[in-house]
Amino acid sequence: MTQVTSLHEDRLFPSEPAQRAIARRLYQTVRDLPIISPHGHTDPRWFAENTPFPDPAALLVIPDHYVFRMLYSQGVPLESLGISRTDGQAVETDPRKIWGLFAEHWYLFRGTPTRIWFDHVFHEVFGIAERFTPESADRIYDRISDCLASPEFLPRALYERFHIEVLATTDSPLDFLPHHRKLRGTEWKGRVIPTFRPDPVVDPEYPNFTPNVERLGEITGEDTTTWSGYLQALANRRKYFAELGATATDHGHATAATKDLPRSRCEALLQKVLAGKATPNEAEEFRGQMLTEMARMSIEDGLVLQIHPGSLRDHNPSLFRGFGRDKGADIPMPTDFVRALKPLLDRFGNNPRLTVILFTLDEATYSRELAPLAGHYPALKLGPAWWFYDSPEGMRFYRERTTETAGFYNTVGFNDDTRAFPSIPARHDIARRIDCAFLARLTAEHRIEEEEAQEIAMDLTYRLPKSAYKL
Amino acid sequence: MTQVTSLHEDRLFPSEPAQRAIARRLYQTVRDLPIISPHGHTDPRWFAENTPFPDPAALLVIPDHYVFRMLYSQGVPLESLGISRTDGQAVETDPRKIWGLFAEHWYLFRGTPTRIWFDHVFHEVFGIAERFTPESADRIYDRISDCLASPEFLPRALYERFHIEVLATTDSPLDFLPHHRKLRGTEWKGRVIPTFRPDPVVDPEYPNFTPNVERLGEITGEDTTTWSGYLQALANRRKYFAELGATATDHGHATAATKDLPRSRCEALLQKVLAGKATPNEAEEFRGQMLTEMARMSIEDGLVLQIHPGSLRDHNPSLFRGFGRDKGADIPMPTDFVRALKPLLDRFGNNPRLTVILFTLDEATYSRELAPLAGHYPALKLGPAWWFYDSPEGMRFYRERTTETAGFYNTVGFNDDTRAFPSIPARHDIARRIDCAFLARLTAEHRIEEEEAQEIAMDLTYRLPKSAYKL
Amino acid sequence: MTQVTSLHEDRLFPSEPAQRAIARRLYQTVRDLPIISPHGHTDPRWFAENTPFPDPAALLVIPDHYVFRMLYSQGVPLESLGISRTDGQAVETDPRKIWGLFAEHWYLFRGTPTRIWFDHVFHEVFGIAERFTPESADRIYDRISDCLASPEFLPRALYERFHIEVLATTDSPLDFLPHHRKLRGTEWKGRVIPTFRPDPVVDPEYPNFTPNVERLGEITGEDTTTWSGYLQALANRRKYFAELGATATDHGHATAATKDLPRSRCEALLQKVLAGKATPNEAEEFRGQMLTEMARMSIEDGLVLQIHPGSLRDHNPSLFRGFGRDKGADIPMPTDFVRALKPLLDRFGNNPRLTVILFTLDEATYSRELAPLAGHYPALKLGPAWWFYDSPEGMRFYRERTTETAGFYNTVGFNDDTRAFPSIPARHDIARRIDCAFLARLTAEHRIEEEEAQEIAMDLTYRLPKSAYKL
Repeated sequence: MTQVTSLHEDRLFPSEPAQRAIARRLYQTVRDLPIISPHGHTDPRWFAENTPFPDPAALLVIPDHYVFRMLYSQGVPLESLGISRTDGQAVETDPRKIWGLFAEHWYLFRGTPTRIWFDHVFHEVFGIAERFTPESADRIYDRISDCLASPEFLPRALYERFHIEVLATTDSPLDFLPHHRKLRGTEWKGRVIPTFRPDPVVDPEYPNFTPNVERLGEITGEDTTTWSGYLQALANRRKYFAELGATATDHGHATAATKDLPRSRCEALLQKVLAGKATPNEAEEFRGQMLTEMARMSIEDGLVLQIHPGSLRDHNPSLFRGFGRDKGADIPMPTDFVRALKPLLDRFGNNPRLTVILFTLDEATYSRELAPLAGHYPALKLGPAWWFYDSPEGMRFYRERTTETAGFYNTVGFNDDTRAFPSIPARHDIARRIDCAFLARLTAEHRIEEEEAQEIAMDLTYRLPKSAYKL
Repeated sequence: MTQVTSLHEDRLFPSEPAQRAIARRLYQTVRDLPIISPHGHTDPRWFAENTPFPDPAALLVIPDHYVFRMLYSQGVPLESLGISRTDGQAVETDPRKIWGLFAEHWYLFRGTPTRIWFDHVFHEVFGIAERFTPESADRIYDRISDCLASPEFLPRALYERFHIEVLATTDSPLDFLPHHRKLRGTEWKGRVIPTFRPDPVVDPEYPNFTPNVERLGEITGEDTTTWSGYLQALANRRKYFAELGATATDHGHATAATKDLPRSRCEALLQKVLAGKATPNEAEEFRGQMLTEMARMSIEDGLVLQIHPGSLRDHNPSLFRGFGRDKGADIPMPTDFVRALKPLLDRFGNNPRLTVILFTLDEATYSRELAPLAGHYPALKLGPAWWFYDSPEGMRFYRERTTETAGFYNTVGFNDDTRAFPSIPARHDIARRIDCAFLARLTAEHRIEEEEAQEIAMDLTYRLPKSAYKL
Repeated sequence: MTQVTSLHEDRLFPSEPAQRAIARRLYQTVRDLPIISPHGHTDPRWFAENTPFPDPAALLVIPDHYVFRMLYSQGVPLESLGISRTDGQAVETDPRKIWGLFAEHWYLFRGTPTRIWFDHVFHEVFGIAERFTPESADRIYDRISDCLASPEFLPRALYERFHIEVLATTDSPLDFLPHHRKLRGTEWKGRVIPTFRPDPVVDPEYPNFTPNVERLGEITGEDTTTWSGYLQALANRRKYFAELGATATDHGHATAATKDLPRSRCEALLQKVLAGKATPNEAEEFRGQMLTEMARMSIEDGLVLQIHPGSLRDHNPSLFRGFGRDKGADIPMPTDFVRALKPLLDRFGNNPRLTVILFTLDEATYSRELAPLAGHYPALKLGPAWWFYDSPEGMRFYRERTTETAGFYNTVGFNDDTRAFPSIPARHDIARRIDCAFLARLTAEHRIEEEEAQEIAMDLTYRLPKSAYKL
């Protein structure tokens, strides 16, 4: 007998009837609002070229580090999931076999957000009514394949069907953004905008840092071997991104360290990092200074500054050698914000023209550091629960531990932060449901009025991301 | 149409009917108990002089850092809220305008304890039935102004109406406590007692430390330039406070560091700190030694020792320059208790005559350090959820993360810790409700009997603060 | 009037009816499953000799550090509880008096797991229907004494009645395991297996480390003054343990530090630690290296490796002088896993033949470090909530903060970790109930199907501990 999937209309709501009833009513007011996606990792090429997505495995399994990290943790070799090896050795190429292996291990995802995302994608995006099991895997594969071949599943069609109002990608500072440019010239009304992510030219430990900075100079016509030329080149590139619609920058440093150094020290550091002679401490100093420089430029050009610290990248060296970056081996670390951000805040924290959005992978900092900081500094806002915490329990804990000190209005709504395009509606739907569930509890406990809860739900879903990201 | 406020009789109780019913019954047994307020920051002058409170803004907005930090975080200048500048430049002086600005930003407090405190103050203290909105702000202002002019709203009348049994203030070690003395001579039955807060004379980094210590010598007739004279002077002052009713001391160091140094080192450190030549490490050493000295004196004179560590004070230097201390820019930090308290505990931790009450701003320490320490050392008790965590979620998390290891009986009931006098009943009411809600859950989950829950509710509300603070 | 105890059939289930109904159904499917106890501290002599347990105090109070730490924290001297002094001075020897003192302070345990364990032991193991109070204490004492004298309460009879399938003890590497050997020779079907806990011979700061290592050499006939002989001796002992049924090793280091040093450094370190000349850093280096060596041996001989870091042992020196180790004065500390485990993981983390089970006393690491590590590395699994967190709130928090990233299948079911033999069923029952309660919430919130929840409940209770510990 075919089993139907579990996409219940009340999913993620509290089961207590009074709270559930309120959550349902709140959700009704936000469920159909457009999606604002101010931070993500989709490929702008999809929308510029609008060609069909490949097979189910290439779309849904191979690029999803949430999926393969879990299978890997249970002994499934990445090769068998079709993940390319850096040495070019053969890996599994049959997408149906990869799909089958995924189905066989699907039970591992019970209780995880991946499970909820896929249930949603299967049911809502691909209209699949049966449960995903090793037995149904082939039928589901076929169904998705068929869908992907039809015009309704082309990237632009999905964008529209998902009711996306704006979608930000994340882009190299050396990128000419050809896809974003191309989109500007089309009739298509979708709004796909770039985000300026300068790590390759501001983080001395980024692969090929020095050639990257040279290339930055070539692109901009600035002498990036001087401090002033280097900064001017970055300002030029920010302007280029802004002209193509960017409203934000993003910074993926390992720590939140910021600096405010004298100019002579900056000049000397630049020479050291370009020469590849910086110590790890000097590299950290340089990154920290660059965050402060980026804040200064943000005050000038209005781009919102996002800081995503706290991940020890590539914890597993043999995996890194075999398969490269972003293979599920990035592990969070304790993260300091209070002292780390002080140099930047001392200089710009009271400037109302600046918006710095903070993310964390260390939940202990929500109530201890982030909410108190965001509840005081005009320049600071708190980004949504991130990465491992982009999940029902993660989002709930985030609201429980930040709201009382920072309020709702020093937060910025939801980021899907994903390259898994078909899951974007699922992710926003979870955030809406969990926020409504949290607001339903506050309402049922008579801490706010339901009318206010409605207004907050609308703010969290739509108004805050638009205003915080200046969209 | 006028909207009524949300002061529901079941507020803060779980919405699940079984738990709610138990919480209601428990709450009925404690709602009318007298308020024990063993730690707070009201002004003893109010009760000594018993003159009317000024206008609504001066009473409820200007002194409340929870209020103005939130408005400031959203770009409202402190000047416009009537906060005095250190340079004497003009700030807003029209209390009605300040009140209007507060009303305009009132929505920011949704989901925060400030919202609940004000709802209670408006409704219960001032009998206001309509919601606080920009539209109703003027009427509410008038209503509160009228109240404040009437004898029923004089400080002593409110003290009685609030059913306060004892109220501790926090006082400088150099203070002669004239208001407390005056109160002793009156017929009024209110019990307003001082607390010995020696930071100005034991923290070398406190403003004017050396002159403060000189003054300590003058007051006590001791030679505070010698270690023995300095200690004797402190003992004298403690005695003076105790004679005026003090039962506790309070220490606001940045860390919980304690020391147990040889006498010669103490003497040398005293010379250094008085000469203003101590390094930051030496200042920390001195503070740490003084906590241990205070513990020793507590064993002698019976005063309870409170330690409130973990706040990085005045994180925002430009705000500090403009407006001074306590303007909402104090930010919590990770706090170590396990190693920091060891020197003090090694010496006095097993002494049943000593009571040390610990507070934290780092919720990660509840289950990891504080509950295990308080659940072992006879001298240690755990203070209630503090500052940013004096809130429904904060209190709930506190009980969830401390009770299983420390039990209820190594905690000391509630502290309101406030200078916002009209909100004292609101704050105690929240604590009573949240404790009853927590006990209701334990009861509904058949972990304790309801009869025990009643006893615990009574203990947490009344008996434990009285016994822990020796009141 | 005699009061009946609170052993409600729905205890620890959510009170919300929808969740409770599901929890009940799930619990029905696991309540009678055999107990798998892969990590504990019972005495193998009990089962080998099968003589009666002594009196109630000696069985239930004197050896239980959860009990006496709480009483001690409230000023009860350990002497009055019959805890032996290291100096041989007299302590209370009348078990009935000790029992009475325990009863008098029984209210302190409200809200703690000790309360639930004892309620279960009284009611289910000893058939006591009245509540434990100072008034009933004597009757309950008599009842337990009577039971203990009867054959139904001999260790083997209880083992069978408790429906234990396998019970692991924890043993010194120098132990010849005579009781385990003896058990192998009997007809009795109980499976009591040893665990290899080499701290006395791999931790240079363990009491009598050097003589211990000498003894290790004597036992094995290896020259333990050389690195290769020392390692070989350890391998021999592991083999000896494995032959008597051991499937795991256990390591109680203060930190999770691991090392992967060159052989020459290992040899030099061994000389230093044997000579008693190692600095604290070198001792830490040596322990860290030994964890990596143990991992290597685990790959060879298949023993599962357990790491229990994060406890600062013997925090209270005067208590330690008076009464020795394990007297409730071990306090958790912040624990790093991400950097600490890296050397071991760099070498063996991807080896599917290795199973490393991690425990923590720092709940902040659940979501930040442990779940991300266990959700990636094939060699890592996450042990259950440990020690202070072996409690309803502790277990609930554990599932809430680990499941979304690590899933259920990178966890290993429950460990009772106890020497309190009569409480073993109580402890497993709590774990089953809390897991069912957690699964009931996921089910009621439509995040998993009830059918899946059933399968997971069975896995957590029975299948995962058996497979993770290779039982």
